[in-house]
Parts: sequence; C-alpha cells; structure tokens
Amino acid sequence: MTTTTTVNVSGERLWDTLMELAQIGATPKGGNCRLALTDEDGQGRDLVTGWMREAGLRIEVDEVGNIFGIRAGRNNSLAPVMTGSHIDTQPTGGKFDGCYGVMAGLEVMRALQQADVQTEAPLALAIWTNEEGSRFVPTMMGSGVHCGIFGKEVALTARDIKGVTVAEALQSIGYAGRMPVGQLQPACYLEAHIEQGPIMEAENKTIGVVTGSLGLRWYDVTITGMEAHAGPTPMAMRQDALYAASSLMRSVIDIANLSRFAPDGRGTVGEVHVFPNSRNVIPGQVRFTVDLRHPLMHQLDAMEATFREAAATLAGEGKVRVEVVDVQEFPATPFAAHLVDAVEQSAEQHGMSHMRILTGAGHDAVYMARVVPTAMVFVPCEDGISHNEVENADPAHLEAGCQVLCDVMLAQAGVVQPD
Amino acid sequence: MTTTTTVNVSGERLWDTLMELAQIGATPKGGNCRLALTDEDGQGRDLVTGWMREAGLRIEVDEVGNIFGIRAGRNNSLAPVMTGSHIDTQPTGGKFDGCYGVMAGLEVMRALQQADVQTEAPLALAIWTNEEGSRFVPTMMGSGVHCGIFGKEVALTARDIKGVTVAEALQSIGYAGRMPVGQLQPACYLEAHIEQGPIMEAENKTIGVVTGSLGLRWYDVTITGMEAHAGPTPMAMRQDALYAASSLMRSVIDIANLSRFAPDGRGTVGEVHVFPNSRNVIPGQVRFTVDLRHPLMHQLDAMEATFREAAATLAGEGKVRVEVVDVQEFPATPFAAHLVDAVEQSAEQHGMSHMRILTGAGHDAVYMARVVPTAMVFVPCEDGISHNEVENADPAHLEAGCQVLCDVMLAQAGVVQPD
Repeated sequence: MTTTTTVNVSGERLWDTLMELAQIGATPKGGNCRLALTDEDGQGRDLVTGWMREAGLRIEVDEVGNIFGIRAGRNNSLAPVMTGSHIDTQPTGGKFDGCYGVMAGLEVMRALQQADVQTEAPLALAIWTNEEGSRFVPTMMGSGVHCGIFGKEVALTARDIKGVTVAEALQSIGYAGRMPVGQLQPACYLEAHIEQGPIMEAENKTIGVVTGSLGLRWYDVTITGMEAHAGPTPMAMRQDALYAASSLMRSVIDIANLSRFAPDGRGTVGEVHVFPNSRNVIPGQVRFTVDLRHPLMHQLDAMEATFREAAATLAGEGKVRVEVVDVQEFPATPFAAHLVDAVEQSAEQHGMSHMRILTGAGHDAVYMARVVPTAMVFVPCEDGISHNEVENADPAHLEAGCQVLCDVMLAQAGVVQPD
Repeated sequence: MTTTTTVNVSGERLWDTLMELAQIGATPKGGNCRLALTDEDGQGRDLVTGWMREAGLRIEVDEVGNIFGIRAGRNNSLAPVMTGSHIDTQPTGGKFDGCYGVMAGLEVMRALQQADVQTEAPLALAIWTNEEGSRFVPTMMGSGVHCGIFGKEVALTARDIKGVTVAEALQSIGYAGRMPVGQLQPACYLEAHIEQGPIMEAENKTIGVVTGSLGLRWYDVTITGMEAHAGPTPMAMRQDALYAASSLMRSVIDIANLSRFAPDGRGTVGEVHVFPNSRNVIPGQVRFTVDLRHPLMHQLDAMEATFREAAATLAGEGKVRVEVVDVQEFPATPFAAHLVDAVEQSAEQHGMSHMRILTGAGHDAVYMARVVPTAMVFVPCEDGISHNEVENADPAHLEAGCQVLCDVMLAQAGVVQPD
C-alpha cells in the first residue's frame, strides 16, 4: 500500500455528466431549477444513482433521503472515506453549485473503476438532501440531521409553502429510505465546490485550499422614531428612523473594514424595510438585517461588541429606540489540518496554482467538519457569480479540482497494490 | 360700510356639524374614510349642500364636481370673497383635515344668516373635488383644474385602481355639474385648516398666520452596485449599493440641517427599495426618494445643487452608479400680504395667541394663491398628527380659527350697515 498512486480523472467525462444532469429542470437562461424533493429532484436522483450503480457503487438511502453510494474497499470494517455534496438547486440556480461536488465524486469512482483500482478502506459518495433550503427550511437539512445539528423530526415535518412535508415529498419521489440517519459515519469527509465568490478569479488561482468556514452571526435591528409629514415637520422636531438607521447600517460595514478585523471580517446589511415607505412621510420605523462574519471567534465577538456599542450610542442620542435581536449563529469551523495540507500538496504536485481560502458560504462540509475530519477543494467560478442561472466554471478548473479530490481520497483510503 | 364689524361664530355649532359629517364613512378607530367621489363622498356632499341651502346659499356645481355655495351680496357684480376646502379624506383619515375648512366656512354663513348681516360683495364657500388624491391622481384635483394648473380632461379621465374614471364617478354620485370650470373667480380666497404639523402646539399658539407655502422638489435616486453573496465576497471587492445609498440618504437630511437653509429647509427620504433585499446578499441596487423643501426658491435651488454635488461625489468614487431623476416640483408660493396681515390683526384684536407659519403640506389654497390673493388660517392639531384616524383638535382652537376667518371675510367683502 502506498499513498502516492495517482489515477487520472477525465475532465471531459466530468463535464459531459454535469451537462447531462443539467438537462433536468433546465431553465431558459441556461440555469437549473431542481428544488429539493420535487419531481425534478427525483429525476436527478434517479439519473445520478443509476450512474453510481454503473460505477460499481452500492446505494443506501437514509430516513431523510440522503443517498450514499458505497464502493467496497479491501477492508470493509474500516470507516469509508467520503465525498459528496448536493444536487438540489435554487429556483434560478446554476449547473455547478453542489452538482460539481457530486459529479466530481462520481468521476473519481468512474476513474477508479476504469483503472481497476482497489482501495484499502471503502469510499462513499453522498448526495445530501435539501442543501439549498429554497423549498424547505432549515437549509443544509440532510447533512444537518446526519451530523446531529437538529433532529430528524425537524427535517421530516418541515413544510413547503403549499403545506407538503419533507416526509410526504420523500415518499412521493421514492427516496424515503430505511437506513437510520447518521449510521454511516465516515473516517473523513471531502467536498469539491465552486468558490461562489470572486477571490480566486481575481488571484488567478486554480485550486482553493479551504482552511475552514467563517463564523457567522445574524441580527434583526429595529429602529423606531416617529412617523410625520415631510412638509409640516421642521428638521429639529423630527425623529427620523431612517436617518438613524442609515448611520447604524453604515457602521456594520465600517466595523468589518476596521484594520483589526480585515481582511477576513465581513459585515453586510442585506434586507431593509422602511415604514410606512411613502415619499412624503418621515419614516417612523426601519427594520434591517445584520450579517457579521469572521474566521476567529474572538474576533467575531469583538465585531459584535463594536456593533452593539454603535447601536447603544445611537440609542443614547435619544432620538430613536434601537432594538437588536439575535437571529442565528454558526461557529467558525476550522477544517482538519492534515486534510487541508493533503489538498495543498496534491495541487502542488500537479503544478496547479493554488491558494488558501476560507469559505464564506455554508456547505454540507461545514456541518461534517463538526463530527469528522473534513476539508474542501474550491475551484473558481466565472465573475464569482453563483445562485444564478449564468453561474459558470472553466472545465479545466473543474477537472483540476476533481483530480485533487481523487488524489486525497486515495491517499486517505489507501490504494491496494496489485499482487 | 365698515370693516370693523364682528359677527360671533358658534364654536359649539361648528363642532356639532363636524361631528355629524364625520358619521359618514366613520371608521372604527374614530377616523373617516370618504374617498373622493365614492358613495360616502356623495352622501357627505348631499349633507353639506343641504346645510348650505338652509344657510341661504345658492349651489353651483362645475364640470369636475367642485361645489360652490354662493351667498348674495348687495352688489352681485363684484367678485365674491371665497373660502373653502375639501371633504374627501384619506383611507384612514381624520375628522378635521379639509372638513374643518368647509365647516368653518359654513359656520360663517350660518352666523351671518343668524345675525342678518348683508355684505357688499357676495361670499362663496367652495368644496373642492378630490384634494387628497387617494383614489384618483393628481391630488388637489378640483382646485388644480379651477386654477388652470392642468386641464379638465386630465381630471375627468383619471382612473381609480378599478378603472373607474372621475367622469363616471361624478355621474354616479350626481355631481357632474354644468358650470364651466374656472367660471367663478373670486376676489380673494381664504382657507382655514388644521396645521397638520407640530409647531403651533409646541409654541402654544392658537392661530397660525400662514405666510405662504414651501417650494418642493421631488427626485428618484437609483444607486447601482453589484449584487454578491455576503459570505464569500471580501469587503474590498464589494460594490455595496446600500452602503453608498445610506451615505447619500444621510446627506439629504444633513443638507436641510445646514445653517444657511435652517430653520425652514426640509429634507426627507421617505421611501427606500433594496434589491434583492435578502439577508445574505450584498444589495446590488437601492432606489430611494428625495423630498427637498424651502420657502425661498433661490435657497431651494442651492439645496438641490448641494444634493446633486453629494450625488456626483459619491458617483465619482467609482464604486457605484448614481442616477437622479426629477419627479415633480411645486414652486414656493407666498400668500397675499394684505390678507396675511388681516388674519394677524383679527387674532390680535381677539387677544388670541398667534404666530406666522409656513405651510409644508399642499392645500387647495396653494393653487388658488397662483391666481387670486390668498391666505390661510391654521389652528393646532393634537400632537401634530394628521392623515390618521386619531387626528384631533381642540374645539376652542377650531372656534378661534373660524372667528378669524369670519372677520377677514367680512372685512374683505364689506358689511352693509342697516339703514
């Protein structure tokens, strides 16, 4: 057994497979609409599990519809080396988000089959249920239940906008499996994904060596002043909720730009609601969202403290009331150092340009990292655009990421040398 | 003939009349919903014109439904001294906005009838069609056509949300009159109104001597950056339309607060639309409205120039595109000095506390001021609240304003002394 074996993956086969999957739920602008557990998602699952069987994988489906394709190793008492992602999409999603991770895993399995390579430990390819959260919340549902982040009942009883539950939707597409959730725990988890951001393209790098995920905190802010007519109310007598809100909204961004939080801190106000939102009425109330991120939890704490201080200062001026409500939190999750190094070494060995990068977006790997050693491989996407029908990626980059994935999986599972 | 005659109005009768009118289209929270030219507006018109006839007025209705109640003078070849306002309301309007001006005029007519006073010139009481603009635009429709601000076809062909035209609505409530619009031009025009703002209450004054209206300019601003995911996009690579917009939104208010525009300048951002308005997406576009007001046109010009400079500076930073579109403009309209003085003298003679004030809101009087000498009498409203079901006013203030109106109308028309 050695860890230096390389099996060449086929970028062309990978691309063709991605394009064939993208026919299901194709949108006029070249994107994909395969919302979780719809008929289209069911057709996608049927297509991909068919390919998985042809590649010699045994298919298992768990109670929340997570699909695992298992490739036997020489020693099947070992926990498998797992890769995976998702094939559900946003309503106007692209062809690569999630699908790339699954198809890259499939390509690894096909390449191993073609090269007739046996691994010491088994390999597994996961298709996680409802990563996008567009039809059912919570998002990252399948991996969330798998990792014990929330219970399976939370998932199974979640309803879409028409009142259909996940349990019902799973039945209707034939993916209500029998395997207990969480039964198949891998030795480690790897996920290939498009970056969904602009950094690698700007840096002209092929492989993103993902070192972990940003910690995230969400807040809802409500600023309450006094609604009044724009004409008859003198400036000095106003309690303009929007004027106050725009100051605090700017603070969110200014805080993330502070040198002590740069360059990895992020601050975003994405959603704003103004009441009554009428041209000649001074806003009486403004509600807005705040999204703070940082890879270091103590720095995220400091960002939050600075933000709360700005809110308190604004409230202290006495013109408006300021309410800050905690909405959600994801801890910063560093990935496993030995897997991160392995990704980097593979890229280096192949002469691929590479850089260390954090993931700002949520991925199934971020949940998996809480329970098993995990890493991710990023490849650039065009203009950093994702969750969009025009989402695109370079076939050469996709092949490179798949090759790195293959290398690291083989290294982790061990290759059985022919006698 | 003398100008010092005073006829005492009855505050109690005025209040009772206001409360009786408020029964039509009464809302559960104590307000009024009598949208222009609805059945409720028709019932209100029937009730008030009945009262006008009982007070000895001859009723004329013009082609856009403006109602004029004319009280003959000794010399009916003279143009009448006119007062008036409107009895249509906002969907959740109050009992005083507009109605007070009409009922105060009615009370003057009743008091003169009771005291058997004849005037030299005739008097007229106008009920203008659709001042509020809630059902049909443009707002201040009846007085606008009367004053030649826009043509009668603009008014008659305006449609409500169900497609009903003003012409059809006038027919259906029986107020499509025959008198050509604009035929009855008065010698001067006076209008009593609640302040609809907080100044007089704060200053503890009974009579607002209105010296004119603020000039007004409306703009629509569009800031375009680049929509991107909040997680994967580093701060330095963002083109955050909301961050840019919040800077310019604050400038609008800061400009109005500049010492050279204070205390009469006004700057308001009332309406904001953020796209895509999603918690974890950096806003790609923000649209907002700007409302600038000042009583001096050269100062309003200077406010606009300062605002456009701020917009150009923001655009010059190169992160976002900034587009400013002109939407509407009302010139500052000073009222007639001799009428303003007459209002002030009457308040002074009665020992009523008074102050000079500008109107920030639009009124039929603002259009009338463009064609005939015009003035307004303000009385305070509770907490400065208007366009709201809780709109309220003090009966003693309403009586005082009505008394001033009566004095000034008699002074302008001249009282015929009994032989």
